[in-house]
Formats: sequence, structure tokens, C-alpha cells
Amino acid sequence: MRELLEAVADGDLSPAEAEAELRGYVVGEAGRFDAARRQRRGIPEAIFAEGKSAEQVVALAETALETTGRALLTRLSEPQFDALRDHFAATAPDATLERRSATARVLAPDYEPPSLDATVGIATGGTVDEAVADEAETVLLDAGVTVDRVDDIGVAALSRTLDQLDRLRGADVLIVVAGREGALPTVVAGLVDTPVIGVPVASGYGYGGDGEAALAGMLQSCTVLSVVNVDAGFVAGAQATLIARAIAAGRD
Amino acid sequence: MRELLEAVADGDLSPAEAEAELRGYVVGEAGRFDAARRQRRGIPEAIFAEGKSAEQVVALAETALETTGRALLTRLSEPQFDALRDHFAATAPDATLERRSATARVLAPDYEPPSLDATVGIATGGTVDEAVADEAETVLLDAGVTVDRVDDIGVAALSRTLDQLDRLRGADVLIVVAGREGALPTVVAGLVDTPVIGVPVASGYGYGGDGEAALAGMLQSCTVLSVVNVDAGFVAGAQATLIARAIAAGRD
Amino acid sequence: MRELLEAVADGDLSPAEAEAELRGYVVGEAGRFDAARRQRRGIPEAIFAEGKSAEQVVALAETALETTGRALLTRLSEPQFDALRDHFAATAPDATLERRSATARVLAPDYEPPSLDATVGIATGGTVDEAVADEAETVLLDAGVTVDRVDDIGVAALSRTLDQLDRLRGADVLIVVAGREGALPTVVAGLVDTPVIGVPVASGYGYGGDGEAALAGMLQSCTVLSVVNVDAGFVAGAQATLIARAIAAGRD
Amino acid sequence: MRELLEAVADGDLSPAEAEAELRGYVVGEAGRFDAARRQRRGIPEAIFAEGKSAEQVVALAETALETTGRALLTRLSEPQFDALRDHFAATAPDATLERRSATARVLAPDYEPPSLDATVGIATGGTVDEAVADEAETVLLDAGVTVDRVDDIGVAALSRTLDQLDRLRGADVLIVVAGREGALPTVVAGLVDTPVIGVPVASGYGYGGDGEAALAGMLQSCTVLSVVNVDAGFVAGAQATLIARAIAAGRD
Amino acid sequence: MRELLEAVADGDLSPAEAEAELRGYVVGEAGRFDAARRQRRGIPEAIFAEGKSAEQVVALAETALETTGRALLTRLSEPQFDALRDHFAATAPDATLERRSATARVLAPDYEPPSLDATVGIATGGTVDEAVADEAETVLLDAGVTVDRVDDIGVAALSRTLDQLDRLRGADVLIVVAGREGALPTVVAGLVDTPVIGVPVASGYGYGGDGEAALAGMLQSCTVLSVVNVDAGFVAGAQATLIARAIAAGRD
Amino acid sequence: MRELLEAVADGDLSPAEAEAELRGYVVGEAGRFDAARRQRRGIPEAIFAEGKSAEQVVALAETALETTGRALLTRLSEPQFDALRDHFAATAPDATLERRSATARVLAPDYEPPSLDATVGIATGGTVDEAVADEAETVLLDAGVTVDRVDDIGVAALSRTLDQLDRLRGADVLIVVAGREGALPTVVAGLVDTPVIGVPVASGYGYGGDGEAALAGMLQSCTVLSVVNVDAGFVAGAQATLIARAIAAGRD
Amino acid sequence: MRELLEAVADGDLSPAEAEAELRGYVVGEAGRFDAARRQRRGIPEAIFAEGKSAEQVVALAETALETTGRALLTRLSEPQFDALRDHFAATAPDATLERRSATARVLAPDYEPPSLDATVGIATGGTVDEAVADEAETVLLDAGVTVDRVDDIGVAALSRTLDQLDRLRGADVLIVVAGREGALPTVVAGLVDTPVIGVPVASGYGYGGDGEAALAGMLQSCTVLSVVNVDAGFVAGAQATLIARAIAAGRD
Amino acid sequence: MRELLEAVADGDLSPAEAEAELRGYVVGEAGRFDAARRQRRGIPEAIFAEGKSAEQVVALAETALETTGRALLTRLSEPQFDALRDHFAATAPDATLERRSATARVLAPDYEPPSLDATVGIATGGTVDEAVADEAETVLLDAGVTVDRVDDIGVAALSRTLDQLDRLRGADVLIVVAGREGALPTVVAGLVDTPVIGVPVASGYGYGGDGEAALAGMLQSCTVLSVVNVDAGFVAGAQATLIARAIAAGRD
Repeated sequence: MRELLEAVADGDLSPAEAEAELRGYVVGEAGRFDAARRQRRGIPEAIFAEGKSAEQVVALAETALETTGRALLTRLSEPQFDALRDHFAATAPDATLERRSATARVLAPDYEPPSLDATVGIATGGTVDEAVADEAETVLLDAGVTVDRVDDIGVAALSRTLDQLDRLRGADVLIVVAGREGALPTVVAGLVDTPVIGVPVASGYGYGGDGEAALAGMLQSCTVLSVVNVDAGFVAGAQATLIARAIAAGRD
Repeated sequence: MRELLEAVADGDLSPAEAEAELRGYVVGEAGRFDAARRQRRGIPEAIFAEGKSAEQVVALAETALETTGRALLTRLSEPQFDALRDHFAATAPDATLERRSATARVLAPDYEPPSLDATVGIATGGTVDEAVADEAETVLLDAGVTVDRVDDIGVAALSRTLDQLDRLRGADVLIVVAGREGALPTVVAGLVDTPVIGVPVASGYGYGGDGEAALAGMLQSCTVLSVVNVDAGFVAGAQATLIARAIAAGRD
Repeated sequence: MRELLEAVADGDLSPAEAEAELRGYVVGEAGRFDAARRQRRGIPEAIFAEGKSAEQVVALAETALETTGRALLTRLSEPQFDALRDHFAATAPDATLERRSATARVLAPDYEPPSLDATVGIATGGTVDEAVADEAETVLLDAGVTVDRVDDIGVAALSRTLDQLDRLRGADVLIVVAGREGALPTVVAGLVDTPVIGVPVASGYGYGGDGEAALAGMLQSCTVLSVVNVDAGFVAGAQATLIARAIAAGRD
Repeated sequence: MRELLEAVADGDLSPAEAEAELRGYVVGEAGRFDAARRQRRGIPEAIFAEGKSAEQVVALAETALETTGRALLTRLSEPQFDALRDHFAATAPDATLERRSATARVLAPDYEPPSLDATVGIATGGTVDEAVADEAETVLLDAGVTVDRVDDIGVAALSRTLDQLDRLRGADVLIVVAGREGALPTVVAGLVDTPVIGVPVASGYGYGGDGEAALAGMLQSCTVLSVVNVDAGFVAGAQATLIARAIAAGRD
Repeated sequence: MRELLEAVADGDLSPAEAEAELRGYVVGEAGRFDAARRQRRGIPEAIFAEGKSAEQVVALAETALETTGRALLTRLSEPQFDALRDHFAATAPDATLERRSATARVLAPDYEPPSLDATVGIATGGTVDEAVADEAETVLLDAGVTVDRVDDIGVAALSRTLDQLDRLRGADVLIVVAGREGALPTVVAGLVDTPVIGVPVASGYGYGGDGEAALAGMLQSCTVLSVVNVDAGFVAGAQATLIARAIAAGRD
Repeated sequence: MRELLEAVADGDLSPAEAEAELRGYVVGEAGRFDAARRQRRGIPEAIFAEGKSAEQVVALAETALETTGRALLTRLSEPQFDALRDHFAATAPDATLERRSATARVLAPDYEPPSLDATVGIATGGTVDEAVADEAETVLLDAGVTVDRVDDIGVAALSRTLDQLDRLRGADVLIVVAGREGALPTVVAGLVDTPVIGVPVASGYGYGGDGEAALAGMLQSCTVLSVVNVDAGFVAGAQATLIARAIAAGRD
Repeated sequence: MRELLEAVADGDLSPAEAEAELRGYVVGEAGRFDAARRQRRGIPEAIFAEGKSAEQVVALAETALETTGRALLTRLSEPQFDALRDHFAATAPDATLERRSATARVLAPDYEPPSLDATVGIATGGTVDEAVADEAETVLLDAGVTVDRVDDIGVAALSRTLDQLDRLRGADVLIVVAGREGALPTVVAGLVDTPVIGVPVASGYGYGGDGEAALAGMLQSCTVLSVVNVDAGFVAGAQATLIARAIAAGRD
Repeated sequence: MRELLEAVADGDLSPAEAEAELRGYVVGEAGRFDAARRQRRGIPEAIFAEGKSAEQVVALAETALETTGRALLTRLSEPQFDALRDHFAATAPDATLERRSATARVLAPDYEPPSLDATVGIATGGTVDEAVADEAETVLLDAGVTVDRVDDIGVAALSRTLDQLDRLRGADVLIVVAGREGALPTVVAGLVDTPVIGVPVASGYGYGGDGEAALAGMLQSCTVLSVVNVDAGFVAGAQATLIARAIAAGRD
């Protein structure tokens, strides 16, 4: 601890970095940031932007960047993304800003990406499922997992699904994203011997719309699936990361 | 009308038969029986036994037998079936009593079964769907439709489904019965060019159980289906009968 | 196959047309388009515009037009329709653009419309049901079915309904569209001997609003109906097309 | 008040009768009985038997009989009814015990039934609706209202409904009882100019079963109805009584 | 009928008026208007504006004015109201346009308002209930009923309620409008001997919000109430009108 | 700790008592019993009997008796109660067994009941609410709180409620128990200046039955209430105990 | 009373103040204001701004200020807040306007704030819970309660929670505000011996979103909690005030 | 294939074994048994006994035993278990019958259990969760996974949870089973870096009872979880098996 405090005194470590190290979380103006989550949980804390002001989002991203080398943000609106981009263009011009649908990452110039010896497959049923899949993909790439993604293979035209069977079977873990009646994870899980995580998407209309039929169908599936909430691409990606880490650990 | 009344006077026609002829429905002790339904609707009135006393069921069956030559009963409990069997054994020993799960028919000795030049396929996902399929099958057979039934081809083992594709494609209309997540009608309807009627079954447990996930999934299906209520085998069979009649009419 | 590839080489067939022919579906920039659906299913793939960008809608319409001779689009917003109109005015000035409420068709100049010897009746309860009926009607006309449509005959003034009984009885199949309590399909289906498909409409307010009461009432109907989801005019039209095709096939 | 207390002292009035007179309600061993309800509300307090022990039901019936001249009980189970019959056979052999389905009345020998110059019509859709209609009918008869009841006229066979139109139009108020999709009150209310009270019945199965579709349909009706809860025959009867009283008051 | 047609020929009667007389309803460009509803039902057809275009609303109002002497409109948006006002200012400058919240009436100059010898009380719980009460009040005034209205007497401050008890008891029928937990109709109905119609209002938030708790509480009330759907002020007013008519008829 | 272990060695303390002292909870054959709950939480752990076998219930009661001087049990079935009575009659004949509806206490002979200088009022709407109130009352008495209970004062006869206002106002905290529409807590809380805890009861039928309307109404109340789950008499009693303790602490 | 009226005559008391004194509530243009609520209930009437016009909000605030010395407003939109500020800047420049999220107070210059010898702790799970906590805090401060608030201690990083345990244990009453799965109140209530009021927050998405999971989890909690509706910060604050008053009364 | 058929001819292979080998599934009298599931899916087909007759259960178990060397059965009732035991006692006296709550396995004498180098931890919140955990445990043991189970560590007494943290952290995968508010998986998943599968249990009462609150809370968790349906111990166990297999494969 003395060492740490001396590093702060010498300016080698910011007070926030030291707080993160000592207490695990950092108390900033926009709340307590769980900087130790990756150490403790194996997955980083993501900043869920929905319902926060652009200022709060930027402040949290700054704390994340400072204490963990990068920030991972989900459910960003356009104005929030713009504020983020403008802020870091001004304050951290060397940082890299990546975007995938409503998800983004800010990477410090010296950030060294991890790498995991495991592959997670992501399959989607149709065009409307892609933003949710993007959320999952971002988390996986952030963790250094290899992602093999196949879009638009819904069961309405079953040959689209079956044509991709070999790729689906090649992954260590599968995330299958589907809206409407959500039958794709059930059909896929009946054909592969890897763990499948189903992600219902809030598409559809009328009874069972907004992902309710897809969620119910996945929970009720006559095959073996585990499930995350409607549109919860981040959770699916993080859970697949934890599984991939365990698999990769055995491979080392 | 004079003729009809003279037939009653001569004992060639019972008063109930004449009432059925003249008014369409018959007012019996257990309610108004819609004797003209087959003429008007193309499908007979079925006696839905659930919630009725054994006496009411027997009285309605008797009226049906007298005015339309046979009675069709659904959702019979064991005691109701026993009462029916005992009653007709005593009062109409020549009548035939057929049973299929909770569904039964009583046929007058001189009942001439109709015949329709059309085939309706019935597919079920698993063992628990069979009683519902039996209800549909009884109505179809009663109407003289050819039934081609394939049981236990749920998508958890997709090869079971695909192995039966030729038979499924051979029917004029398909009734697909499935519980749990109810994905079978969606998969089948994506592969055939005949009308498919989905029937959700009240199986499953937890969220979406009791047929709710199956119903939602069928209504939300990304293929083309029409749907009946959970466990409504009779309605599916009757609707398929109406379609089969229209198809057969063109064939004559 | 050689022939096909030579046609591509000669420029008589576009690569997309050849892909559609060989693989069934076409992989375009906005996803996999199921070009073989009409062959396999008897009904074309419709482009469901809701939740897609105008660019995606236009790209899919172009693929559809190129590989199947026409594009069928549902749930178009005004901006999506404008983008469509502007795009084809510029790129395919000979194509015809038809619109019915939020539904549209783009027809190649050499598109030869099919014709089916069957009539589908469409009845609506009130003014708010008409856009849903338009969706169904577009699919039916696209398939060459004769449509007999009667609007605004809800049961609140029962004589409006009964006055149209002869027309309703004259159709081979009936689509009955109703919101609020959704009693119209029940009343109609009790009076005709053709298959009736009920379409609940998302009207009404308070308990059972947004089509829930209508859907529940149709599923629970004491007559024989099959049902599609709330506002699912396309599904009802497509299902009626499949029935009409089967009937017409017998007539030939 | 002195008079009252002297009557108690003389044994002309029981303490409970005096308490009812003075305080409105009577505190007995099974709770506070609202003896003044008919005076205050125009309708008597009914003893809702469900969830009470047979002893509580008997004790409340005794208090009601003593303080208001008769007891009105609903939702009686067989054992509760038997306990009631046995108790009054022993303790009040002159009292009359009437039963209609699960509803009963106990009448003191000197009970003078009221009479109201108004007619309430009760219509039911089918056999399963009759017990609920019986509950309504008991309350109306208890209030001296003339009841005109027509059973089993559901809209599946519309002629059954229309044949009774004149009787339905002849009543001052209508109670229309229906389960399943509950369309009967909507159809009837579109054809008469009297107030219609809809009573949903807990029949049906699957989605919208247990009276939910009927309730939703009546609340959402495109005609004018007021509604009571599922199976609430007592409430419908009591509300119709209040309307009938107001009408009859004008006629005097 | 000859007479009628001669009146048309002479220009004394418009074709629409004649059609209304002969057929009951009028087929206009915006649908079938049920011009005979008041004759048949005792209450006029109201034009429910929600979900209709301003053009449709105006066209229906014109038909109503022409065939019944006045138009009654509910759920008008500002643009719809403006279109209405502008249209009639131009085409029928003598007509009167009345407005109450989102409800309006257009009266022909020679319209003779009816008068009924009966009083309907309207009570509201709070400020947010008033627009719904306005809808009810408009229908009642249109029918010539005397309205006695008391606002803002919710049970949170019970003395506000009890202070108005005499006025509430003075009405022939009561409409009680309340949101949130909807306890007001229960408390009022326990204190008066007139029929009470409860109207839940879509206020509140969280669980049971949007009028759901109020509706459930009124249907479940331990007193006697009949109920209309959430926000259904028109239905409550029309039902109270039918009761008031019956009462007034007896008084004549 | 040495002392404790010596006491065990000397037989002055059972191993379970020592474990409770040292670890807070005791691991018995039927699970971990939270013996330190009263110390930590101010309220004892109650044994919720529903879903447990009679053997498990008895074993947990024994552990509770041994380590805390008494056992508190809720939701006991008759067989569970009988097993309890028989067990302690045999093994602890000096212990006292108290019962109140489905709730019971077993008290060691040397158990010294606590006493708190505070009064909690309990009010119920009707007879069916009493068992839930008994559950609350048992917890309060166990904690030494003075309970003032008033039964059967539902708002259907408002004078029953208002007559008890002085007693209700006299308590430090109020628990108000009501089923059906659950209006009683709202009316009471509008009239007193003490904290009111509403307890919905699973009575009623149809829409909003099983306590749903009562719960929604209490959560949506226009007065100030906090609420516990349907039938959660124990939770209400325990929460009132915590409040009473805090009040009494101030009084000392 | 004479005194009061003389004060009005002398101009020492406004008519509204006198009405408030005599009748308890004041009838203003925007409804009846319950000026006596603090006297009767111990908590002031708050003006719930949602669904009211800016004019109504201002009028009610003015009545409140005039009759009770200050106005307390919740759920203010920006335009409503602006109208309030502008109005009082013009008409009561000496008054103080305080704001906390969507909650505000207007204080007359001579308003003497109360003071209570009790502390209420407020804990929140995350950033999105803070506006709801602000609503509770405003009510408590208005009542003179000491508030100890700890933000952002959700259980996803349990050390954030446990680090604050001493502060949480130090309060007399705890309000715990949490969205998503709402586990924080359960964890906290298991560790403290003070009454805990759980406040679910309308965050989250998909199944159980909008506070539904949090509400269900708090009602179902295996610890002892009482609960208010989703986002009901005002109710939680007012209930905690009532408890704090009772505790403080004992301390005096 | 010739070899296989020769083995059948020689009696070395039963026809069912050969069918299983050739077609993947076996068509028996009680349906199609998916004998190849373990090969294809990595997990065996389990026989879900609920809703099947004892005869069907026995027949399926026999087919499973014959073609895969053992049968795995879930949700067995007592009579079904008895039929199973009696049947195999008579027909396969050498087979071993194991039972764990409602789950059972029948093992052929020559069945060689697999072994996997991986550990799955199972944690339960309380006594009522144990039968669901037993279902999961059976599947895991059947697959040769090491199971480390910790019961009764619900968060109401948080020290029970934290005391077991080291064991929880030691597993490769965690299954956390909890009813009521279901907070245990959220708390655990915040403290470990392994994948956690949450299993809601159908305990609790009132709002959110029957596992609904637990399911919603786990789907809505602010930590990372994947979830299976309420009471779906088998699915959780099978999913954990698939993950454990992948981990173990890396370790070899």
C-alpha cells in the first residue's frame, strides 16, 4: 500500500487509479464505478447509457478509461455518442473510439487487448436482431474471444439454417439471437453439442410481441438452452465470455 | 310444412326431428340443440361435455342422435362416458359408440357416413399432444375426410420432422399440434405449400406454460399460420373440415 | 446448372437471379432474401418494413424485383414509401408502384400477374379496421385471387351485418377483420359454411384494448374460426391465398 | 329510543333487532351484520358463503333472519347448504328454505315479500351460464321484481337469439349472461333500447378462458353496456333491482 | 315509402335522410353511419374520433348532422376539432358547435333538444378525472337529462365526500368517476340507494396504474356497482341515459 | 469463546446453543436455522411451514426452541400442527403450545416474554381477513407489543368504520387487513396520523380476485400507505414490531 | 368561529385561510385543496403535477402557500416548473423556491420549518434511482427529519453495500430505493434492525422491466420489508415521516 | 450397415439398438425415443414423466435402457416410480434403480459411467429449493461431472452465503437455485468469476409467487447470469454439463 501511495505522490498513478486498486470501486461525480469488476468477475463493468445524461455517461467513461484502460458502453443514443466522441477528441486525442450499433468502446493508446483461445458463434434470425447481436459481439471482442457470426438464418426458410450447420457446430459456445416466435435457438440447440445461450429480441407485434413470445419459447424450449432477458446482448456476451475463459484456461 | 306435420302424425318423424327441420334448433330439457348446424355451417354441433352434468350430456346426445343421426361429444370425463355408454346400451342397443381419448361419437344404425375427396394431415410434436390431435381427428373422420396422422415429430430431434416431410406435403391441409415452445408448426409451415393450422397444447411449466408460449409463438410465427386456442382440437378439426369441403367441392 | 451459369455469362440472367435459382435465397447487403418462397410455400416473401432503415427496405425491394419480378412490402412508413418511390423512379422508371394504406407493390414491366379461380371475401367491422384489411387484400390480389370486400358492417347495428349475408356466403373463404370486442367474426361464422379467418385489430382502449379483447374473443369463440395475430392482415391474406389455391386447383 | 328499549324489556323485540334498529348493524359471533342495508341501500346484505365455515354461515343466517325477516345466501357449498337446512329444521321449523343452484333464501313465516312494478329480463348464452343467472334471479325475486328469463340463446346460432327479440325488448332492464367470447350482450344491446347489464361467466379454456375474454369483450363492446365482474350474478341482480326500484317509483 | 321518395323528388328530404329513414343506416364516404340508433337504442351514434383522419371525422359529422339534426363527437384531438370548426363555419354557419374537453356537439339551427324528467349525478375524485366526466356529461345533456355534478371529492379527505352526501342522494342515477385506487364509487355506493355506475380513470403509475387498479377495485367492490371500461365516459353517460329514460317514462 | 466451549463441555450449553452463539445460525438436519435473527434483526426467524414436511417442521421447531427459547410457526396445516403437538407432548411436556389460526408458538417453560411500551392496532374488513390478521397478531404478541384489534369494519357500511375511529387513532401503528377491492386502508389512512401498513387478502373472485385488486389498490392509494404482499400477515406484524420497538425505545 | 370571521373582516386572514380553518379543505378554481392534511395526517398534501396543466399547478400551489405557508410539488415537468418560478417571481418575490429533480417546494418568507429528532436513511442502488430518492428526501426535509443519504451501493459489487453498513444501521428508519431486480432492500433488511421501506424503480428492460421485477422481488422478499409502488418516492418519504414523528414523540 | 444387420441377425444387437444406430431415434409404442441424443447433443434424452401414463413411462424407460444402457427420468409421481420399480424388478433384476426426489435413473448392469474432469457447484437458498437442485444434480452425476453442493445459504442471513464463498469460487460452473425474490444468484454472481446459471423455484405466494418474482429478478439482474425456466433443474443441469464437457475437453 505504501508503494501505491508513493506512486500517487510521484504522479505515476492517479488518485482514481489508486482508489480503484485499494477499494475496488471509485467514487466519481456520476457514481461508484466498479473498477475491480474484471479482476473479481472476469468481465468488465459496462456503462449502461440508457436513462443517464450525456454528462454522466462521459464522466463514467472517463473514470473507466483512467482506471481500467478502456471504457465499454452500451445503449448509447446518438447525442450520447456525439458527446463521448467530442469529449475524448478534446481530452484524449490518442484514445481510439470504436462503435458497433449502440455499443462503443474507448481504448487508451497503451491498452493491450487480451486474447482467449476460444470461439463463440453468434447466429441471428433476421435483420432486426443484428443490433442486439452487435452488443454481444462487442463484449466478446473486448475479452479477446474469437467471434464467428452468421446473420439472417431464421427457420422460416430452414435451408438458410441448415446450410450454416457446420459453422455453428465449430464454435465452443453459441449465442443465438431471435425475435418473433424465437424458434431458431430451439432448432439450433437440437443439432449441436455445445452450450447455446438464447437471446430473445423485442420484435414482433400483437400478442407475444416485444420479445415476449421469443422469451417464453426459449424458456419453454424442448431442447436445452439457457436464456437471458429480451434484448440483453451484453449479458449473453458476458456469460459466453465467462464460459470461453473457462474453456480457454483448460487449453493452456 | 304440411307434409312434415303429416309425417309426425303418422309417426314417421319424431316431434324433435320436425322441430329441427322447421326451426333449425330443438328445445330439449338440457337446452337448445342446434340441429341445423351441419346444414348451415357444414359442421355438426358438438356437445362440449366439460361443466355439464352426466344427465345433461346424455340428454343432449339423445337429441343429437334423434335429429341428426349421430352425436359428437368432446371433453368427456370417465363418469360422463360411462353414463353415455350405459344409457345407449339400454335405450339404443343398435347404436355404435366410438371413443378416441376424451372424444366420442354415437352413431345410429342407419347413419350413413359422408365422404369427402380430400386429405387432412395431422402432425404432433410429442406424446402429450395426442389427445388434442384425437379431438381434431374425430371431427374430420365424422365429416368423411381422409386423415393422415404422424405423431411425435417434434423439432428437438429435427430428423424426426424432416423424415416425414413427404407425407406432410401430400396432404391438402395440415393441422400441427404442439406444446412447450410450439416451434413445430413454424418449421413445418416453412416447408410446405398447403394451409397449416397451428394448435397449441397446454403442456410445459413455469413461464409460458399451459400452452401460453406455444400460442404466442404460433401467433408470432415468422411463417404463415392460422391458429386456434390452446387445446382446441375440435375447432382445428372443424376448420380443416370446412377447407377440405371447399377443396373437395372443386374436385367433383 | 451449366445452362444457368452460361445464361449468367451471357448476361441473360443476373448473378442474383442465378443465386435465387440455385440456392433458393439470395444473400444481399440487407440480408438473405427468400426468393424461392413462392415456389416452396405458394406465397411470396413480403418485406416487413417496420424496424428497418429506408436503405434496407429499398435494397430488399430491389433484390425482390430482380429475382421474382415484383416486390411486396408491408408496414411502410411515409419516409420509407418516399424512398422507395424515388429509388424506383430513378432506377426502374418502367416499374409500376402500387400502394394500399401502408402496403405497396413494385411490379416489373414484364411481370405477368397470376390468376386463381377462387374468391376470398373480406369484411370489416368499422373504419379503423380498413388498413389491416388493405394489407390482406394486397396479398390476395398479388396472388390473383378475386376479392369481394364489404366494409363497416359491425354488429352494433346488426342489420348492417345481415344485409350483406348473401355476399358473405358467396365467397370461398372469408377474412373477417374487427377490433374492440371482436364479435363480428363470431356472428358471421355462425351464419356461413365457408372457412372464416378472424383478424383482431389493435383498436379499443382500457382493459382489453389494443386488440387484446378481440383476439381473446376470437380464440374463445363459440363458433368455428381460425385466427391470426392482432393486425396481422398479411398473414390472414396469405393463409386465405393458400386455401384459395387449393380450392382453385380442384376446379381446374 | 325509549320505546324500543321498552319493547326489548317486554320481549317484543330481541336485543339484536333493537341493535339493528339503533346502530344499523349487529355485532354477532360471526361478525358485524349490516341489518340496515336494505333501508340504506335498497338491497339487502347477502351472506357470501365462500371461504366461511358452515358455522359462520349458519350464525350469520340466523342474525339476518332475526333482524330482517329473511336471509339471502350465495355461493353455498353442499355441506354449507346441509348445515343450513338442518339448523333451521331444528330451530325454526316454520321458516321456508328456498334454493336455486348455489343460492338460497330462508324466510321467516311472517315475512311479507315486497313487490315492485317492473320487469327485469335475464338472458343466458348456454347451459353453463345458468347458475350465474340463478344468483341474479334470486336477488330480483327477493326484491319483488318480475323476472322474465330466456335461456340458451347464444349467438353461435343467431336465430335462437333473434327469435327472442320481442321478449327481450319487453323488459325494463336486461341482464345478459354469457361466457366464452361473451358476444351475446353486445348483440342484444345493439337491438334494444333498455339498459343492459353484461355478466361474464367463467367458462371457456385456453387464452381468455375463465371469463376473461367475456369480461374484456363486454368492457370493450362497441354498443352500450355496463358490466359486473366474472360470475357476479348477485351484483347484476342487485344493480338491476336498484334500477327497477327507480323505474317502479316513477310508475306509482 | 312512396311518400318518402316523393319528398326526395321534391327536395324536401335529402337522399341521405331518406336512406336513413328506409335502411336505418347511411352509407357515406367515411363508412356506414347508424342514423337510426337513437330510434332503436334510445341513444345516438357518437363519432369516436380517435384513429380517424380529420376528413373522416368531418364527413361523418356532416352525415350525422344531415340525418339526425346534430352530431356528437368524442375523443377529438385539437386538429380534428379545428377541422370540424372550420368546416361548419364554412358550410353551416347557422349550426352551433359546443365543446367540453375532447367532446363536441354540432347542432343544426332547427334542432329541438329533448328533455327528460330525471337527474343523473356525476361525482369525480380529483382534477384528472374531469375530462372523462365531461364526456359522460355531454351525452346526458344531449339526451335532455338534468345533470348534477360534484367534482374533486376523493376519499383521501373523507369529509370532502361526506359533505356532498345529500346531493349525491338526490340524484336518480349516479356516475362516479375515479382513478388511482378507485375507492370513491365503493364508498359512495355504500351510502346511497340509487344505481351507481363506476368509471375508472387511466391515472396513477406503477403497478395498477393506467386505471387498472381502479377497474379491478370497482369490479371487486364489496358494494353494488356496475362498471364501464377505463375512461369510458361516453358509455357511462349513455347507460345512465337509458336508465334515466326508463325512470322518466314512469313519471310521465 | 473458551468460556462457551467449557459450558458445552460441562453440559450447561448444548452444542446447538453454542453454535448459535458462535456462528449465528445452526446447521440442523432440516437446514440452517437463523438463531441470531432476533439479535440482528429485532424479530425472530419464523418457520414458514408451507411446502415443508411435518418432519422438517418439527426438527426446525426443536432447533428454534433449543437455541432461542421458543419457536414461532406460520402457515401450518392440520397434520403439521398435530405432528408438532404430539412431538412436544412427548419430548417437552413442560413447553406451552399456543395456536391462532394457522400460526403457532412453542414456549420453553423458562421463556421470559419481552414487553414493549407501544400499541399496534389491527383492523380487518371482514370475516375472511381474520386468519391473516391472526398471523400478524401472533408476531406482535411474541414481541411483547400491545395489540388493539378491531374486526369486520369494512367500508361497505361506512358507519362500522367511523364508529371505531377513536380506537384506530389511539394506536402507535396500524395494520389494516382487507380483501376484495381493499379500500379500507385507504379510508383509514386518510383519517389518522399514524403509519398504516396495508395487507391485501386473497379473497374475491373474477378479475382482480385472489387479492390482486386489493394489492393494486393499496399500492395505488391516494393516501399514504406502505404495503406487504397478499396474505403476508407475518411480514406486516414483523414490520410493525420494528416500528413499535423504535417508538418504545424513545419512550424509555 | 366569530373570532375567525372577524379576522377575515379585519383582513388579518384571507377567506381561503378561514375556509381552510373551518372546513379543512379549500375550494379553489383548480379543485378542493386539503389544507388540513398536515393537521389530520401529519403530512402535508403534495401537489402531484403529472396530468395537470401549468395553470392548475400554479393555482394549487398558490392556495397551498396561502393556507399552509408552503407548497410541496412532485412530478413537475420543465414547463410546469418554469410557470411556477415565473408566477412566484412576479406575485411573491419573497418566497423561496427550492428544487430537487422533479420535486419542488415554495416557502413563504415567514414559514417556520419544523424539526423532528429522528434520522431517516436513504440508500439507492444506482444512478437511475436518484430522482426517486430525491422525491422522498424532499418530503422528509419538509417535515424537519434528518436525512442520511448513501447513493450507488447496489449489490452487484457487494463491498459497496457492506462498506456502508454502519451508516445504514445508524438511522431510525431506512428507505431503500432500487430498480432492475431490486435485491438491495432484501440484502440491507437482512442486516439491520430498523424498519426498511422498499421503493422499486421503473428501470430495467424486457421481462420484469419498468420496475415490475423490483416490486415483485420486494413483496416476495425473504426478509421483512414494507413496500410502496414503483417510483413512489413521495409515499415512501411520507410514510417514513410518520414513523419518524412517532419515534421523535417518544424522545421528547 | 451390413455389419449392423448381421449383428441383428446373430442376435448380438436388438432391432431397437440397430434402429437407434441407423436412424438416430427409435419408434416404440409410446413414441419416438431420441436414442442418438447423447451422441448428437452431448446430453441424453430424459423422460419427462409428467402428463404421461405409468405404462408410457415404463415403455420409454425400457427403450432407453435397451438402446443407451440407462434411462433418466424426471418429474416422477409416486405411482409412476412404483410402476418403474416393479417393472424392472421383474424384467431386469440386475439393473440398478437410483432415485433423488422426483428424479430417477435405471442403469444396466454393464453400464459404464462416464467421467468428466470438471466440477459444477450447486447452491440453494432454502429447503424448498432442494428438489429442483436434485433434478440438476442427477443429470450432472449421470454425465460424470463432479458436483459440489451447498444447501440453504439464502441472503436473508447473508453470513450463511458469505461463509461458503470459497467453495462457490472453487467450482468451474455454478447453478444457483432460489425461490421467493430470487436474490441469491445475483449476490453470488457478483462475487465469483465463473459462469452462473440461475434457476428460479416456484415458491412464494401472492404477487410474484410461484417463481415469477425469482424469474423476473434473475432476468433483470444487475450482474451477469443466464437463466432457465422456473423449476427447470434438468435444463440447468444439462446446460452445466455441456459447459463442463467443453472445459474438461480443454483439460485433457
